[in-house]
Amino acid sequence: MEDGDFNINLTIVGLGLIGGSYAKAFKEKNKGHIWGIDIDKNTLKKAAEMDIIDDGYSIENAQIPLKKSDVVIISIYPEVLLNFVRNNLNNFKKGAIITDTLGIKEDNIKYIQNILGDKAEFIGGHPMAGKEVSGFLNASKDIFEDANYILTPTAKNKKETIDFMGEFVKSIGFKSIVEVTPEKHDEIIAFTSQLPHIIAVSLMNLSNCEDIKYFIGGSFRDTTRVAAINSDLWGQLFIRNKKNIIKCIDDFQKNMTEIRNYIEKEDINDIKKFLKEAASKKEEII
Amino acid sequence: MEDGDFNINLTIVGLGLIGGSYAKAFKEKNKGHIWGIDIDKNTLKKAAEMDIIDDGYSIENAQIPLKKSDVVIISIYPEVLLNFVRNNLNNFKKGAIITDTLGIKEDNIKYIQNILGDKAEFIGGHPMAGKEVSGFLNASKDIFEDANYILTPTAKNKKETIDFMGEFVKSIGFKSIVEVTPEKHDEIIAFTSQLPHIIAVSLMNLSNCEDIKYFIGGSFRDTTRVAAINSDLWGQLFIRNKKNIIKCIDDFQKNMTEIRNYIEKEDINDIKKFLKEAASKKEEII
Repeated sequence: MEDGDFNINLTIVGLGLIGGSYAKAFKEKNKGHIWGIDIDKNTLKKAAEMDIIDDGYSIENAQIPLKKSDVVIISIYPEVLLNFVRNNLNNFKKGAIITDTLGIKEDNIKYIQNILGDKAEFIGGHPMAGKEVSGFLNASKDIFEDANYILTPTAKNKKETIDFMGEFVKSIGFKSIVEVTPEKHDEIIAFTSQLPHIIAVSLMNLSNCEDIKYFIGGSFRDTTRVAAINSDLWGQLFIRNKKNIIKCIDDFQKNMTEIRNYIEKEDINDIKKFLKEAASKKEEII
Repeated sequence: MEDGDFNINLTIVGLGLIGGSYAKAFKEKNKGHIWGIDIDKNTLKKAAEMDIIDDGYSIENAQIPLKKSDVVIISIYPEVLLNFVRNNLNNFKKGAIITDTLGIKEDNIKYIQNILGDKAEFIGGHPMAGKEVSGFLNASKDIFEDANYILTPTAKNKKETIDFMGEFVKSIGFKSIVEVTPEKHDEIIAFTSQLPHIIAVSLMNLSNCEDIKYFIGGSFRDTTRVAAINSDLWGQLFIRNKKNIIKCIDDFQKNMTEIRNYIEKEDINDIKKFLKEAASKKEEII
């Protein structure tokens, strides 16, 4: 076993874009078994044929891999995540670490840690990786390379578990592992992820496709890159993080109105000040 | 001479990111002379050393290359563009084609065609290419590869001139050449270029850099890619296209408010409808 490799029995629940990418990535870095659980039999069959899972199971047979798994990564929609945990409360291996991949944390984690008690340990995880397309067929281990990973431990998590999770995901390419509370996570992610997605769809929906096709440059292309998001998943994320998202939208609109009014008044000095502030913040962050 | 090559005496006024990139690109495709005019002596020296111009001239000596040039590409800020043409009215070669690279057209073109009379022919051109950085040192001939080019002819332009310009810029990599009136150009570009830039700076300015650094994924990075724009140039562009830009900002904010309100009401069906509309428009355009 090479340095940095693991020997863990791992179950991945939901072999979509993120779950499928995890399977591909961990297949190379983890010497233990990797099992997949999915509602789609074809996906399970395909993943087994590609040898990125050892075996695939339906939701109804989840107990078979769960009982043997040291780590369970659940990568499914918010609504089904809670059901899955509730329905499998007695199927997790004693002491197993369970994590998720969702872009919202606070409510889920409270609920899950509560119903799990000491049957298993749940720790929230959010890989800041993705693609503008979804599904297993688009999964790729490369999406994690140099990406950020957010851990959202609570007082119920052990220090060893937090450390383990950081090392585990670093092994597949994540660069920065950062820890915040679930509350803070939801507040920041509303700004750094959900707001840019709302901007993308709002801009896209304003367009008259026929008219603008040949007038597009890099800025429009970039701003709308994520405009074709999975509406089931993101609809749920937006509603579940509504308090933070609405604050972000309102703050953003206030900022936009500021520069709008400078332009209306032809106030070149304030426009330039606004643009320079953006430029210097950009240098600082990215 | 290969098929598609030209043999034209060309002067490029302003060797910044766009002008410098033109010089590099045409040096390979045009067998005639290429001269550069710039206020920065170092840029002229560097461009001559790199052999992408045959000679460089200060603004004061503009008449030397202009008198011999079949084509003049003026790639400088809106305010100085008008001055440059006015100060060189009698320096253009009879029948020369003069074009620009600016993101606003209507007012400039009216003014320039008016004062030029039949001394030379001005035709507006807008290369939909750029980079998030400016200046000659960042110039590259690759930025035009597969990009869109917009021509904004008026009743004062000859058909041969329009055709020539299309062929001339195709030779350096542009893929789609599209023609619209200067008025329509300004209206569409406010939406496809200036609005995304305003979005980028407004989003960037909202951020508290320290807090968000490790919470950034692809969507935030993409939406703010162009946030460090040249404040002198873009400040002028925004003010000169103010009528169209303000309409775009207002329409965009109305759209954003629509999805904001669906989220507030937890109206999952309308959110999903909104997201699906964006996804299908995205498929259609990009």
